[in-house]
Amino acid sequence: MHGYTPDKDDYLKRLRRIEGQVRGIARMVEEDTYCIDVLTQIAAVTKALQAVSIGLVEDHLGHCVVDAARQSPEAGAAKVKEASDAIARLVRS
Amino acid sequence: MHGYTPDKDDYLKRLRRIEGQVRGIARMVEEDTYCIDVLTQIAAVTKALQAVSIGLVEDHLGHCVVDAARQSPEAGAAKVKEASDAIARLVRS
Amino acid sequence: MHGYTPDKDDYLKRLRRIEGQVRGIARMVEEDTYCIDVLTQIAAVTKALQAVSIGLVEDHLGHCVVDAARQSPEAGAAKVKEASDAIARLVRS
Amino acid sequence: MHGYTPDKDDYLKRLRRIEGQVRGIARMVEEDTYCIDVLTQIAAVTKALQAVSIGLVEDHLGHCVVDAARQSPEAGAAKVKEASDAIARLVRS
Repeated sequence: MHGYTPDKDDYLKRLRRIEGQVRGIARMVEEDTYCIDVLTQIAAVTKALQAVSIGLVEDHLGHCVVDAARQSPEAGAAKVKEASDAIARLVRS
Repeated sequence: MHGYTPDKDDYLKRLRRIEGQVRGIARMVEEDTYCIDVLTQIAAVTKALQAVSIGLVEDHLGHCVVDAARQSPEAGAAKVKEASDAIARLVRS
Repeated sequence: MHGYTPDKDDYLKRLRRIEGQVRGIARMVEEDTYCIDVLTQIAAVTKALQAVSIGLVEDHLGHCVVDAARQSPEAGAAKVKEASDAIARLVRS
Repeated sequence: MHGYTPDKDDYLKRLRRIEGQVRGIARMVEEDTYCIDVLTQIAAVTKALQAVSIGLVEDHLGHCVVDAARQSPEAGAAKVKEASDAIARLVRS
């Protein structure tokens, strides 16, 4: 049971669409599609992945972090540290 | 009193250094410095600003969000929504 | 014949690996993997996609843009405008 | 004489506005402004810096890179490599 569990089907649908988009980019390269069009498609996939990340962060904060905080300040602080490190990786990627 | 209050002096020092770096970039442009060197310096300032943001997010989650969660689940949920929107703006910028 | 044509096989290999990584992320979600681990994996895929983009931009500048510039200043300017718009989408994504 | 020289005054104006915005963020921190509002303002400054970078890249490609390409393929290739490295730093920051 995680923060994203209630929305699991939605996340799976989005990830499968992204998988298909990446396969489509490989096909574009295989068929020698113009570079700029390949780049545009990669930017779209990157944005879709970011949107999944942002959703997962929100679910994680709203469940795992809030639950830990309600258990004890120490448990909350540990989860906050872990979530902040994950957010830092997202912002920097 | 906010999440970042205990580290306020550190944040102010970093922001003043960033302000000086931006002034330095303007000086580089004024003195016709080579474009690539100006770009390198802008990338450095952007990274410094991101580091400040990441610190502020961590402080905010660790104080405002954890405190709200400990008050009530509803208060926690409202703060999580607000923080997630701010994180989304960071990831997308 | 495009800028990336000589490296086509390398790009295809990287894109197929990325496709497999996205499929792996869907599997992680399906198996209720801990949110933070899913986020770490998404950040890795985003970085891999960015690396592909950066390679494509370099190939595009080195072939399509340089060739156009050698044809005429006007042809060069048109290709630069198009490439700059694509770079802007990358930087903002 | 660089790619950005014709737009120098515009860049200087934008950089001075950004410098003022950074000073404004320091003031917000000094006056204990709510964390989320500080984060919103940092995201705005980051976007403004990115817009300056994107403009400089376009000017650089349109002048330094195109001119080098018109001189010789080797000169063009060297400038493309240098520009691509700078673009990679931007995309990753």
